[in-house]
Amino acid sequence: MGGGVSRLITLCFVCFQEPPQQILFHIHKYKYEFHVIIVGHCTKVPRNSNLENLRSGYLFPEISRHESEHLRRNPDASLIRLGIGDTTQPIPDTITLAMAEQVRGLSTIQGYRGYGAEQGNMPLRKAIAGKFYQDMGIKANEIFVSDGAQCDISRLQMLLGSNVTVAVQDPSFPAYIDSSVLVGQAGELEEETGKYGNIIYMNCGPENDFFPDLSTIPRTDIIFLCSPNNPTGHAASWQQLKQLVAFAKANGSIIVHDSAYAAYIRDGSPRSIFAIPGAKEVAIEISSFSKFAGFTGVRLGWTVVPEELLYSNGFPVIKDFNRIVCTCFNGASNIAQAGGLACLSTDGYQDLCKVIDYYMENAKILVDGFTSLGWKVYGGKNAPYIWVHFPGMSSWNVFAEILKKTNIVTIPGRGFGPAGEEYIRVSAFGQRQITLEALRRLNSFL
Amino acid sequence: MGGGVSRLITLCFVCFQEPPQQILFHIHKYKYEFHVIIVGHCTKVPRNSNLENLRSGYLFPEISRHESEHLRRNPDASLIRLGIGDTTQPIPDTITLAMAEQVRGLSTIQGYRGYGAEQGNMPLRKAIAGKFYQDMGIKANEIFVSDGAQCDISRLQMLLGSNVTVAVQDPSFPAYIDSSVLVGQAGELEEETGKYGNIIYMNCGPENDFFPDLSTIPRTDIIFLCSPNNPTGHAASWQQLKQLVAFAKANGSIIVHDSAYAAYIRDGSPRSIFAIPGAKEVAIEISSFSKFAGFTGVRLGWTVVPEELLYSNGFPVIKDFNRIVCTCFNGASNIAQAGGLACLSTDGYQDLCKVIDYYMENAKILVDGFTSLGWKVYGGKNAPYIWVHFPGMSSWNVFAEILKKTNIVTIPGRGFGPAGEEYIRVSAFGQRQITLEALRRLNSFL
Repeated sequence: MGGGVSRLITLCFVCFQEPPQQILFHIHKYKYEFHVIIVGHCTKVPRNSNLENLRSGYLFPEISRHESEHLRRNPDASLIRLGIGDTTQPIPDTITLAMAEQVRGLSTIQGYRGYGAEQGNMPLRKAIAGKFYQDMGIKANEIFVSDGAQCDISRLQMLLGSNVTVAVQDPSFPAYIDSSVLVGQAGELEEETGKYGNIIYMNCGPENDFFPDLSTIPRTDIIFLCSPNNPTGHAASWQQLKQLVAFAKANGSIIVHDSAYAAYIRDGSPRSIFAIPGAKEVAIEISSFSKFAGFTGVRLGWTVVPEELLYSNGFPVIKDFNRIVCTCFNGASNIAQAGGLACLSTDGYQDLCKVIDYYMENAKILVDGFTSLGWKVYGGKNAPYIWVHFPGMSSWNVFAEILKKTNIVTIPGRGFGPAGEEYIRVSAFGQRQITLEALRRLNSFL
Repeated sequence: MGGGVSRLITLCFVCFQEPPQQILFHIHKYKYEFHVIIVGHCTKVPRNSNLENLRSGYLFPEISRHESEHLRRNPDASLIRLGIGDTTQPIPDTITLAMAEQVRGLSTIQGYRGYGAEQGNMPLRKAIAGKFYQDMGIKANEIFVSDGAQCDISRLQMLLGSNVTVAVQDPSFPAYIDSSVLVGQAGELEEETGKYGNIIYMNCGPENDFFPDLSTIPRTDIIFLCSPNNPTGHAASWQQLKQLVAFAKANGSIIVHDSAYAAYIRDGSPRSIFAIPGAKEVAIEISSFSKFAGFTGVRLGWTVVPEELLYSNGFPVIKDFNRIVCTCFNGASNIAQAGGLACLSTDGYQDLCKVIDYYMENAKILVDGFTSLGWKVYGGKNAPYIWVHFPGMSSWNVFAEILKKTNIVTIPGRGFGPAGEEYIRVSAFGQRQITLEALRRLNSFL
């Protein structure tokens, strides 16, 4: 008995981009495109309904696709990328020398290393605890080294499973919601609002200082909070984080605090949720070397799961996270880990602070530039992102217009959630002269 | 209202190892251990029932734990590790030089790279397609570069979701079943058989040439097959893989073929499932640089998802896998990828073949040694693992006895599944003189 139709022309209500050798009858959830599929052999394996429930493309690859499409149409365009928050400045020598030494050691009997601990090498875990969590009572064994924050968000969702309720900031980094959909927490996508039915969207705009008004937020099991926020650039204040920890404690919630941009904080706001007393009983923190050390391509991050954090049945969350890390992960690259350790040396850290200062000078230039052009600008003071308001306008239209007229890639705020409409996110990562050139182009356009 | 009890002494029916600062009342599923927990604050977040359903420790960290415990009791023991299949030989210079050059380039404006494509750098994807899939019709865009096979198994399970049925070889690499439990496919663990109720265990022993008797296997959505097999060392023959592909096609199943040890095949058996005509419509292949190139600590692998592979509704699996990779992963380290490319250069590949030959000479020594000691030995001819039969004996007991009497770490076959009882797995990774010393010790013990 055959496993499906063979070489038949059939109509297929499915959703994807131009498949080679196949013509698809394709109904997109938003747009209508029509193809005919020639099916060779269909398995009888059902498609995961969680994936069916997911918006068709993850935001950042979608932006790259728009960028490529623009370049295809305008092959001579001199593109400026202020879209995806990708680091551009060289990694200080101190750090790459340490990695190169580790690499070359792998060619020697003495220096060769195979599998490391899934949780990360202990010297690195200790260095992270010492550098970022001093006086917060976080121990090295509570730090799990990862290959980056985005990867750990998914592992965390695998840990949590489908039976938890979730709140996210709106707007927010799209991985929280997308991974939530992937594990089946999110409910149905409501087309008119653009929101998933089971997710609580915590509005963050100028009206509430970009921090959720907790008096209006229902209890959820999990609260994702990103500070400094991506995309708005807002760093939660001591007062705001204290409120959040008290709110989580009263509700029996777990905060998942994303501090990937903590190194950019300038105004004394807390760089870790664990700076707040009591946070160890209610919070997990995800963080990264990507933006702190220019490791976007090197891949290194960490997650803190305190021993004090317990499920409703008293079982420690750290035991389950450890099990997930050991089963679904095999440790970060030992080369990246050697680099991470060098980042936290006195010299490495000082050198990195200079790179961060450089990006923050770009941020100031962008903030001042947009402001002088008459636009209302947020962020850029404690984060490498500028959040620009275009009242009454569609963010995808603003994005498209800027790209078309100035060859500058930004990110439409709508990509970060419904509350991102009317905004675009502009990245301060980049060479100084390119940032200045971007402003010149925007000056003549806006 | 508080989120849970505070500083109360309470009894907790949960399961874990000695928690610091906490004493637990602990009922293990198999053993009974009693503790008292002092609970500070319990959140109201329910523990994921899939994690509750999982055996307490992942096999390999459990083995490491036994190893450490043995060393703690016998601090002067000269331990030989033939347990976890961890590479030991230096990586050829050609490869580490390429990585070191990539690393040092990151300190220059010209050589700096941030985020790469989530799917991997195209030159590496092309090189993998050219080196391993020539004449099989696998295209570079069907190859997804990963940070290792174990990590991709979990991402694949996230793709498949909880509503598919799964068959695994028994014995098999434990990540298939454990990740299956994590996403909720497995059903309940039956204590007497040690099997999960919803998983089909395909017995693989000497009676069926270590390959499932497909006439006795019910249809499942997914069939995990590892060849050369970990732990038995059996490489599926052309005939066996052809049968499997036909079986999957007739049943509308998807084969997940793990070829992490393909480079060790010596007898002309297929090194890829895609060497079998028609496999592209029914199979995914997971593979790795770990054992091929000594990259266990460097972290690099790949997964092949052919465009022809379709769900029951005609939707291409590759589109969903791409979405998972973009959402849950951010690409393998660009340093590891530079190394991967060097592995596939003419010189790099030749150098690696010598390292593989070295391990396979160890394997031969072990096979001959155990055989001359009168034990029935399988594997070791197309894989770096020896599968030794101890009829009528408990594999955990054999493991413990060998460790106690000879200070040699092996792996108890039972850790790979119920059909692994009476066996131990011995790894051929190691220095020659250590392999020889292991045999001397075993000689006087067995």
